[in-house]
Amino acid sequence: MKSNRPIHASPPDRMLRDLCPALANKTYFNFGGQGPLPDPSLDAITSSWKRIQELGPFTTDVWPYVSAEVNNTRAQLARICGVPPHRLALSENVTSGCVLPLWGLPIREGDHLLISDCEHPGVVAACLELARRKQLSVTVLAVRELRGGRNEQAETDAAVLEALEQMLTPRTRLVVLSHLLWNTGQRMPIAAVAAQLQQHPAEPFLLVDAAQSMGQIPVDEAAAAADIYAFTGHKWACGPEGLGGVALSERVLLESNPTLIGWRSLRDETRASLDDPHPFHADSRRFEVATSCVPLMAGLRSSLNLLEQEGGPGQRLERIRLLSERLWQQLKDLPGVMPLLKGPPAAGLVSFELDPNTISLEPSEVVKRLGDQGIWIRDLADPSCLRACTHVCSSEEDLQALIGALCHVNAT
Amino acid sequence: MKSNRPIHASPPDRMLRDLCPALANKTYFNFGGQGPLPDPSLDAITSSWKRIQELGPFTTDVWPYVSAEVNNTRAQLARICGVPPHRLALSENVTSGCVLPLWGLPIREGDHLLISDCEHPGVVAACLELARRKQLSVTVLAVRELRGGRNEQAETDAAVLEALEQMLTPRTRLVVLSHLLWNTGQRMPIAAVAAQLQQHPAEPFLLVDAAQSMGQIPVDEAAAAADIYAFTGHKWACGPEGLGGVALSERVLLESNPTLIGWRSLRDETRASLDDPHPFHADSRRFEVATSCVPLMAGLRSSLNLLEQEGGPGQRLERIRLLSERLWQQLKDLPGVMPLLKGPPAAGLVSFELDPNTISLEPSEVVKRLGDQGIWIRDLADPSCLRACTHVCSSEEDLQALIGALCHVNAT
Repeated sequence: MKSNRPIHASPPDRMLRDLCPALANKTYFNFGGQGPLPDPSLDAITSSWKRIQELGPFTTDVWPYVSAEVNNTRAQLARICGVPPHRLALSENVTSGCVLPLWGLPIREGDHLLISDCEHPGVVAACLELARRKQLSVTVLAVRELRGGRNEQAETDAAVLEALEQMLTPRTRLVVLSHLLWNTGQRMPIAAVAAQLQQHPAEPFLLVDAAQSMGQIPVDEAAAAADIYAFTGHKWACGPEGLGGVALSERVLLESNPTLIGWRSLRDETRASLDDPHPFHADSRRFEVATSCVPLMAGLRSSLNLLEQEGGPGQRLERIRLLSERLWQQLKDLPGVMPLLKGPPAAGLVSFELDPNTISLEPSEVVKRLGDQGIWIRDLADPSCLRACTHVCSSEEDLQALIGALCHVNAT
Repeated sequence: MKSNRPIHASPPDRMLRDLCPALANKTYFNFGGQGPLPDPSLDAITSSWKRIQELGPFTTDVWPYVSAEVNNTRAQLARICGVPPHRLALSENVTSGCVLPLWGLPIREGDHLLISDCEHPGVVAACLELARRKQLSVTVLAVRELRGGRNEQAETDAAVLEALEQMLTPRTRLVVLSHLLWNTGQRMPIAAVAAQLQQHPAEPFLLVDAAQSMGQIPVDEAAAAADIYAFTGHKWACGPEGLGGVALSERVLLESNPTLIGWRSLRDETRASLDDPHPFHADSRRFEVATSCVPLMAGLRSSLNLLEQEGGPGQRLERIRLLSERLWQQLKDLPGVMPLLKGPPAAGLVSFELDPNTISLEPSEVVKRLGDQGIWIRDLADPSCLRACTHVCSSEEDLQALIGALCHVNAT
């Protein structure tokens, strides 16, 4: 894996890349921020809008089309998550998927939340506000310093489970942990964590932020094991912004009430009355709200199908890893550049710090200078670092451009 | 106004109509369900997506474009609502706009909610769930039988204020009332209600469902007076589905905490910590969540501009009323058809019941039979009736087609 033979993009690899205008005029590494939208997916969105206008927009003629769009999208996402469709709710973004089921969980004053120290600020703030209102205690699960990379995955997994054991209390009702840590890129053993929580007397719920995993790594095992497994379609899945989903456990469906309620949450959307204390769908739809942008669904399915043409989830991950390992190695060999992970990454997130003695620029300044050359990575605040992502549509030439530019970033 | 001279579509009136493919192949009266999307608005959406792909999708080059899209959309909607931009939050739909600020209001166990009997089931169900969790009492403000129409607006207004006075208690913390009742079409005196609530010792918050008013009638006075004035862009404003907004009062911004929290709610999106009890934006953005579909914004602005080309809000309402009055009158003259309102409607919502002795069909069957002829109205459950809407892009020919079809609906 560490040979220097060039990784040529094979014909199917080129397919997705060549279909993305965003990749045509720049060298792009921000798939973890937002993925490129392939032309056929934009066409699918536009066609869907035209079909809705032709049949509707509000007619009995259009309802079968809209239902099919919703059902097909739900079914495809459920398949990827390894859950039946009644456990898959559609959402606007990953945060909504995390937070909507959260507010209706059976959590009582004095209960305890355990949140990893690598969660996204949006999700953290939501948990803290929940804690403030319900007077819950909150502690932190330390995973940020677990940076073994892929070669030490077993040790990392054991360390996570050990830390978990130490931090759980008899009142712990919720554990929040990302599948792939968005800052370090380390993978968390979600299924094993779920199994451990099930053995715990308090049976805490497990909320997983899957922003970085859906579309990047196989998610079925983790998604089926978690209580709340929330993702977006607009990052690694290369779908449009504004559409995501969340896989929910049977007990979340049973025990959590919806909070952001609209006609889509209701069993009978024509009425709601004081006499009916359980007006909500029994399935995942209880966490769906009201009118959303139906045409986006065709776009997301198109992107998922294009990804599938590049290979199954396992094959795609293999290619992503091949590229990320090469990038990680080349960064490691660069003077003044220190990858966060000790070994090659589990997937495509490659984060690194700069030695101020060699490269005396702030991360944000590095982003800017590379951007001036059409090379796009991002900086992160906590820990302060830079992050480049490799996807199936990345190429050896992309890596060379980044490494070459980093070599001279002080001088540009 | 009751003459029989034909209402010819004037050149500017034709503009919007001719730009809507949805209106080209059918006779459409469901603007209150969803408005048609004009071609230039779909083009604006597609262009926005292409621009985002060209500049981004996740680069420092694209952020100024995205910020301008958000700021311009917020500013345009705020202008229409007669509020400064810091009081206008963008939302996915009208229900989210109603419910997101609702869950963070300072409401305590034992407080009282007063909800009109003409609210949408989604909003009602959200209020009932809030009441269940916080142990609030709920009573109903009866407005459904106030059906005087436009000619008795003053009497209706007085009756609403009188009913309000009778139903308010010292513990009332929230009143929920639509601006235009979606079933009867009667207009509610929102500014006067707001003024009355301000005089009340408990100073209840006023939540207004503006699903039917934005894009149909002037909303600035009501939107500026309410605490929560929530609307969608995809009905009378003829924008894309999946984008709406909510105008918020200064005291909601001060006193209500966000519940569905994401990076857009946060002052500093890079961090959230236990040490900061107030991490949220002080302005309307505290009720915005996370990634949404930015390209929709260009589509909504395009549609609002096309509407503006048909005339200012007052001029448009005049035309809408001209058509709705004519429809109301013609329905009234039809055997077996009884409009819900005693006089011509305040705006474009024209609801009517059928005398089963003359027309022995269920409302849903009437919808189906008219739909088979390409004429689209909808049925409502409570009260059981049919509803046809006239918009600025409706024509005299549309009315004739509907009336003609209703004359023979028994036989079809």
